[in-house]
Amino acid sequence: MKPFSREEKEEILGLVDSYEAGHGLPRPFYHEELVYRADLEAIWQRGWLFAGHSCQIPNSGDYFLYEIDFDSIIIVRGDEGEINAFHNVCRHRGTVICAEPEGTVKRFICPYHQWTYGRDGRLLLWRGMQEDLDKSQLGMHRVHVREVEGMIFICLAEKAPDFDPAYEVFSFTAHPQGFNHAKVAKIMDYEVQANWKLVWENNRECYHCNVNHPQYIKANFDHYNTDDTIDRIARELSLVTERSKKKWAQTGLAVTREETGMTEFPDPDRNIWYAANRTPLVDGYLSESMDGKLVAPLMGAYSSPEDVGTMRIRSLPNFWNHSSCDHGVSTRLTPAGLYKTKVRLTWLVDENAVEGKDYSLDTLTPFWWLTSDQDRELCERAQRGVNSRAYVPGPLSEYKEYNVMRYLRWYLRQLADYFNI
Amino acid sequence: MKPFSREEKEEILGLVDSYEAGHGLPRPFYHEELVYRADLEAIWQRGWLFAGHSCQIPNSGDYFLYEIDFDSIIIVRGDEGEINAFHNVCRHRGTVICAEPEGTVKRFICPYHQWTYGRDGRLLLWRGMQEDLDKSQLGMHRVHVREVEGMIFICLAEKAPDFDPAYEVFSFTAHPQGFNHAKVAKIMDYEVQANWKLVWENNRECYHCNVNHPQYIKANFDHYNTDDTIDRIARELSLVTERSKKKWAQTGLAVTREETGMTEFPDPDRNIWYAANRTPLVDGYLSESMDGKLVAPLMGAYSSPEDVGTMRIRSLPNFWNHSSCDHGVSTRLTPAGLYKTKVRLTWLVDENAVEGKDYSLDTLTPFWWLTSDQDRELCERAQRGVNSRAYVPGPLSEYKEYNVMRYLRWYLRQLADYFNI
Amino acid sequence: MKPFSREEKEEILGLVDSYEAGHGLPRPFYHEELVYRADLEAIWQRGWLFAGHSCQIPNSGDYFLYEIDFDSIIIVRGDEGEINAFHNVCRHRGTVICAEPEGTVKRFICPYHQWTYGRDGRLLLWRGMQEDLDKSQLGMHRVHVREVEGMIFICLAEKAPDFDPAYEVFSFTAHPQGFNHAKVAKIMDYEVQANWKLVWENNRECYHCNVNHPQYIKANFDHYNTDDTIDRIARELSLVTERSKKKWAQTGLAVTREETGMTEFPDPDRNIWYAANRTPLVDGYLSESMDGKLVAPLMGAYSSPEDVGTMRIRSLPNFWNHSSCDHGVSTRLTPAGLYKTKVRLTWLVDENAVEGKDYSLDTLTPFWWLTSDQDRELCERAQRGVNSRAYVPGPLSEYKEYNVMRYLRWYLRQLADYFNI
Repeated sequence: MKPFSREEKEEILGLVDSYEAGHGLPRPFYHEELVYRADLEAIWQRGWLFAGHSCQIPNSGDYFLYEIDFDSIIIVRGDEGEINAFHNVCRHRGTVICAEPEGTVKRFICPYHQWTYGRDGRLLLWRGMQEDLDKSQLGMHRVHVREVEGMIFICLAEKAPDFDPAYEVFSFTAHPQGFNHAKVAKIMDYEVQANWKLVWENNRECYHCNVNHPQYIKANFDHYNTDDTIDRIARELSLVTERSKKKWAQTGLAVTREETGMTEFPDPDRNIWYAANRTPLVDGYLSESMDGKLVAPLMGAYSSPEDVGTMRIRSLPNFWNHSSCDHGVSTRLTPAGLYKTKVRLTWLVDENAVEGKDYSLDTLTPFWWLTSDQDRELCERAQRGVNSRAYVPGPLSEYKEYNVMRYLRWYLRQLADYFNI
Repeated sequence: MKPFSREEKEEILGLVDSYEAGHGLPRPFYHEELVYRADLEAIWQRGWLFAGHSCQIPNSGDYFLYEIDFDSIIIVRGDEGEINAFHNVCRHRGTVICAEPEGTVKRFICPYHQWTYGRDGRLLLWRGMQEDLDKSQLGMHRVHVREVEGMIFICLAEKAPDFDPAYEVFSFTAHPQGFNHAKVAKIMDYEVQANWKLVWENNRECYHCNVNHPQYIKANFDHYNTDDTIDRIARELSLVTERSKKKWAQTGLAVTREETGMTEFPDPDRNIWYAANRTPLVDGYLSESMDGKLVAPLMGAYSSPEDVGTMRIRSLPNFWNHSSCDHGVSTRLTPAGLYKTKVRLTWLVDENAVEGKDYSLDTLTPFWWLTSDQDRELCERAQRGVNSRAYVPGPLSEYKEYNVMRYLRWYLRQLADYFNI
Repeated sequence: MKPFSREEKEEILGLVDSYEAGHGLPRPFYHEELVYRADLEAIWQRGWLFAGHSCQIPNSGDYFLYEIDFDSIIIVRGDEGEINAFHNVCRHRGTVICAEPEGTVKRFICPYHQWTYGRDGRLLLWRGMQEDLDKSQLGMHRVHVREVEGMIFICLAEKAPDFDPAYEVFSFTAHPQGFNHAKVAKIMDYEVQANWKLVWENNRECYHCNVNHPQYIKANFDHYNTDDTIDRIARELSLVTERSKKKWAQTGLAVTREETGMTEFPDPDRNIWYAANRTPLVDGYLSESMDGKLVAPLMGAYSSPEDVGTMRIRSLPNFWNHSSCDHGVSTRLTPAGLYKTKVRLTWLVDENAVEGKDYSLDTLTPFWWLTSDQDRELCERAQRGVNSRAYVPGPLSEYKEYNVMRYLRWYLRQLADYFNI
């Protein structure tokens, strides 16, 4: 990647300065290749990215690929059960070593000239090379990797930001969910014809839920805010919250979100890009499913489906998870161009659950797939609109879009910090 | 859109200066993104564009979209019957308000957060926004619009050029055609893989007609010029012209073009981008149809099909219309990239004509569709050729390509005027 | 094409300087549009390109097109049997004159306005143009063309490099093959999703052959090198070489390659871009076919299939040919974007051979088609890998990749010579 010139950095910082607080982003943020390159370098190649779940690679040698822009990363279970991540690039002529998106290997053998690497990335064999070369200098390039409660995060930067605070938050909240004893029920990949930031802006408010997510709002309190939480709703929320606290107080499973609306996230002032919490579901909803009934056996530490609410995990720039007592759904974003975002949805259930007997994809997947597809269409319409020369950022709702404001400030801070001359 | 830098402006003006009179344009005009951007800004976002016909939106609330580059424009019939045009962009988060290319609305409701606008563009409702914001400042962005004899023109510029002289010319000539009492018989959309300027160069000469438009030349005198108008043709033209003048002298329907070849258009010296006139058809041709016979009932003020000739309207940069006594065909161009032009053909007939009874698409459309398709192929071959590094602009025929010269001088003048530093 | 700015030239020369001898090329050579533009101008538009075989156009008026980047070239057999090459661009408005990739013409008539050219490129007719123009100045633009032993080479430069040394080498070695009395048995066109340089790097070593070309290595000695030519192989090579020399000494058909491994090519120090030689086949292989048996009648001067070996011709930047006693296969490369190379394979057999009787495509084509397709996949994997930000050029094998090193040095020299300020 060609380094940014001084003029380009100044242009980016000028755009950051042009932002008017309480509004959307100006058009160039969604429409200029320069900004897309800046996003990749300042955010995607610098921060921690959710890659996938540990249960995707249960045994030594199991691997999957994660491709971000022009980089292909191998995430592999090593000989000792540890998780390693490497650039999928042979140190000889640069050839992609693994072409299949997932699989199991004993060793990594480059198909071009058979240079052979261990699961720990060390170069083991290179038939035909001169004898005076130093094999130890030519292992596969390592990528930072951290695992927490069955979730795998990687970082493409040379020096990774501190992961420990996120580790602490995730491990505390996610532990009862039992992702370490889960299995993948279904993976769905799709594309959104929109800049990745529009996908986050959509995610950071439930202002759009009333009309666009008829099934989602039946189960949740997110779409009510201080301006429209009527007494009946407040009483209902209070009821389920109190019941959950009373029931689960001793177990750490009690819901912690006591208000309507979305939990505040991210925190641009303290540069906090990760969060996890437990949120109540509407009375009668045991799970985020179409009818509120369970769609799989209980997971992890849950001994009863009642009053568990839903666990919510999120980390910028590419991950959110909604988990009910019986299943979890992870959403992973990947930018694939100025106007395109790839999305992977992964449904997890207990590792012992048997498809067709204990759960059916027909009842497991519709709730979140519908929500995702409805959002896809909204994001694509937003992209078409902000492309217009007539687009001017409008005011955001203080009642309903506070998290969009938080997100935009977090985003702009990343650029400002990185490009500050 | 990023503003043009001084270096870019100088490059454009340098290209303008490199033009050799009497020749085609140099290669960069068809092959450089810089020029395409310049064309969009200096011409397409500055001048009047034909959008469509009033009869496409007969009732209040009827609308259609016109998309030019990244801009989407809503053309809508307002509550009082007036025609309004707006950018199809919500003032909140920029979302495209209308996704369907045409339809009927009571109000415009953005699907994202239900901001609601009237047919006059005023913001009416915005549930969930803070109370201290000023709704009156956030109506849909207006686009200039003018209507003349059932033809709708829009202008994307902040300040539109004077439309009145065009209005006068169009209203005088087009009035008898009765577009105000017409209906759409057929719309065809297609793409030409060529720069929009090549489509105009093709349109501005009939040098190519002899071999390429066998059906067109049977009906018209355009393809004869001073170098090849033999006596027989001159006599024939004189005959039909005299007959028309004699017959229609009192009604304003007489043909005004008395020579072979095409009417001179545009006028680069006086910067005239609009024209309308009446031209004779070959004896025996009552209409621009395959056999010269009527293909629909008489339109507008025509009381007899005899000696009406054809009405020709054209306006730069995107419109021409050929109308016979029984039908009219409008051609609308839209640039869609350096090498691509979208074309819409619209056939109009009298509003009371009934398909299958009074007219059939099988006889109405072939004449102009064939002509358009033949030209599409020629334009695409021209684009492939001018892409070549070996392309050098050749001399134009003074006998046959005088209007190409006029058009090129008009085009270069637009760039020179706009980018003059 | 816009000329390279001083900054761009300096960037290219900086990249050339960044090359570490004995290694692969740095990432920008495969990943930057600037380098692709530089390659086109410094190499493809300057050197001699193999276009096709004379036997494709046996009679006056026969032509085929060769398209390189935005240029389309007509290669035509002239009235006197000579071969001419012209830019496929009308001197009037630039239109592509021939749209069909091959055919036979009496004259070249531009379909737009019927300007008419002879097979020698002279402008013959231009109906409708003013009388005072000089027709003699407006012939089709000539392209340099040379023919040697039935192989046609063109050069797009204004001043072509000296072809005579290549002529001498090719005519001596290729004469016995009889391409002048050959016919095309099959043409296959395909695309490789890789930069053209990766296709050459693949071609310049047989390090990858062992695993990837199981059928090729059975017939050849290329994949053995000084590090792994065991005694048995050395003896076998010696045997067939001696037999060939003994048998063909008087005829000029003796194999000249006496060692395992590939002939050294190119020669970057003497800037030699062409080579031809005769190489032994493994004992029992009379032809580069799946089972080593003949797949067509003997060609040219060959009086016996025994000990002829294979003739190898190659010329940078776009040609190699492998010919056995019974057939020849030409590979022609054409860049079609930073990440795409078009390849044409042409199988030649004796002009009197009859398909279905004397040869079958089922046995003629698999050997080389399999080899080509296997290489296609390797090149595409290499491109995906060198795109990665983690790609770092690795060390090349002195035993096995000496020709890759030679090729890379030749390539870099072309850029350095051309852009030297």
